Order: sequence, then structure tokens, then C-alpha cells
Amino acid sequence: MAEAIDFYFDFSSPYGYLGSHGIDDLAARHGREVAWRPYLMGAAMKISGSPPLVEQPLLAEYTKHDLARSARLAGVPFTLPEPFPVATVAACRAYYWLEARDPPAARELARALYAAYFADGRNIGAPETVLAVGAEQGLDRDALQGGLQDPAVKTHVREVTDTAIARGVFGAPFFIVDGEAFWGHDRLAQVEHWLQSGGW
Amino acid sequence: MAEAIDFYFDFSSPYGYLGSHGIDDLAARHGREVAWRPYLMGAAMKISGSPPLVEQPLLAEYTKHDLARSARLAGVPFTLPEPFPVATVAACRAYYWLEARDPPAARELARALYAAYFADGRNIGAPETVLAVGAEQGLDRDALQGGLQDPAVKTHVREVTDTAIARGVFGAPFFIVDGEAFWGHDRLAQVEHWLQSGGW
Repeated sequence: MAEAIDFYFDFSSPYGYLGSHGIDDLAARHGREVAWRPYLMGAAMKISGSPPLVEQPLLAEYTKHDLARSARLAGVPFTLPEPFPVATVAACRAYYWLEARDPPAARELARALYAAYFADGRNIGAPETVLAVGAEQGLDRDALQGGLQDPAVKTHVREVTDTAIARGVFGAPFFIVDGEAFWGHDRLAQVEHWLQSGGW
Repeated sequence: MAEAIDFYFDFSSPYGYLGSHGIDDLAARHGREVAWRPYLMGAAMKISGSPPLVEQPLLAEYTKHDLARSARLAGVPFTLPEPFPVATVAACRAYYWLEARDPPAARELARALYAAYFADGRNIGAPETVLAVGAEQGLDRDALQGGLQDPAVKTHVREVTDTAIARGVFGAPFFIVDGEAFWGHDRLAQVEHWLQSGGW
């Protein structure tokens, strides 16, 4: 079986949210799995020095317009939430706590967290919201709450983030296909072409 | 006749260079003209506060790789030149001086300047190079040299840049289609879809 596609994203990245719609289907068309890898993009942005798009004059207005337009084109429900961005450490911990126990359920939780924030405007920066979304997914709330405080889970989130940065990841969505890096929702067509052609 | 597509770019933008290949053909497929609008992107970047991609840690390496890969996919000759970036005020003045006299020739000069920099590695930041490229395009060198110092041309370049910023332009390539703004070489597919569908 060919190697999985690494899909790095931050739960607070709207373009990551758009990328999360479609990457699994795209990969499946080419017989690939996708390894969902939420990470703390803020750590990468501290190194790159890149300010968030929506905090830059001129870019902010354009980006809001582009996000809404790209979401409509993709048929994905989207509203830029308030507050934005939010800290996503609780969401990340919930994901990796569950991934160690039930990988398919972790994928579903990730989708539910993204939808809660970008479709329903719920503040997933608050651990309470992460717990509520988890409960809606059928998870045991107390067990998940324990997971958010589990030292091993905390370490794992830091390690995933460190590994991401060591691999040159800095944005979201960020895909790595057989060692080849593609940054951005708008590189999905290139990812597909790469899988079809084996590179160019 | 439907309105022309505005194509804003800076002569020092490699993604602008990639966008310059293809936009005319794309527009022609939909019965549109393209108004080439070189401007001084540095003035917009001072407002947006965005540092150049190739000056940001993590982004720099990725961007160099992405440029080369995107150019190969598009079949466009490309080498990131040294020095990079360069000041493009002389190139802009040459363009607008000629546009006032012979618009099709100005378009050809723009293509030649872009190719000189990104395909042949000639430093178009130097007025001497701009004059040499102009001469290769059959322009009178002394007349062009006069154009580079013409106060009306200088004013025009400033006005185009001010107008661009007032319209929300901040990057390159930046397309405006019937009032709808699209930023990036990677939005060409959306531009085409917009022209086909009349928007979504």
C-alpha cells in the first residue's frame, strides 16, 4: 500500500477547514489513506514571522471575501467565526487522545470540531466546547476531560508540532505526498495531479 | 464588449510572471481583453506589512520549491534570479511611456522584461537593462531613456499604484473581473470559472 498523505492543519485555520473537505475523497481516488495531523500552527508562525492574513491591512478584507467565495464554490458551509482565531490546544489534545484509542472516531471528532467552529460559530478555543462536541460524538465526557489533562497527550501534541516544523510545515492546510510538500487549499489540484502523474 | 480584466502585477513578482503566462489566452477564450497594469507592489506591502515570502523562515524554502514546480507544470521557463527582488520603477515607467504610444508594443515589452528577469536572469532593476531590453524590442533607446525621466510618466506610475491600492490590490498577480478581485496565480481556475458562470 502506498504511503499515506500527511494532512497538517490547525483547528483555527479556515483554509485548513476548506482543505479538510475533499482531501479524503481525493486521496481515495488514488488508493491513498490520509493521516490527519492537527498541530499548533502558532508555533510555526512564531518562527516564520508571518502575521495572520486577517490581521494584515488590505489582505484582511480580501481574505474574508476569498474564504466565503471559495467555500461557496466548494459547497462547504462557512461563516468566519467570532472570536477568530482561537487557541486550539484543547482541540488538538482531544484529537490525539482519541486517535490513540480509536483512529476513525478521532477523524470524525476532527470533522465535528471544524464544523462546530466554521459552520456553527461555536468557540472551540474553550475546552468546554471541545468536551461538548466530544459528547455529541458519543464520547465519555469525563474520560475526554481526563485526556485533555493527560501529560502524555500534552507531550504528543508538542511532538507533532515540533515534527511538523522540522518537516518544513508552516501553514494550513499543508499536505505532504511522498515527501513532496504542498501548502494551501488552492494546491489540491496540484496534489491530485501529483498523485496521477507521479510528479513532474 | 465586456469590460477588460485588470491584471495587476509587479515586474519583480515571480508569481506575477507565472500569471502573465496564460491570462491573455484565458481571457480570449471568454471574449475579454486584459488590461496589463504593472504597479509598485512595494508601496502596497508597506501598507499591508507583509514581508516578501522569500524573506520569511520556513516559507522561503517552500516558496522557492513551489515556484519551480508550478513553472514546470505550466511549461514556463523559470529560474529565481539574483538579485531578487529588485526595484521595478524603471520597468514600470518604460511600460507606461510605451503604452501611451503603442499599447500592443507595451504588452510585448512587458513580456520581454519578465522573460529577461525570470527566464534569463538579467537584472531589470537596472535602468540600463530596461533600455537594452527595449532596444531589443526595436524601441529607440534615446527616446525610451527620455521616457524614464519624463515627469508625466513618473506621475502616471505613482497614480496607477495609488489607484491599485485604493482598489484593494496588494499582491501579484492580482486580477479584477467585473469588480471581483482574485489574488494569485493559483486563482486562475476561479477566474476562468467566474467568466464561465458569471459568478457564484
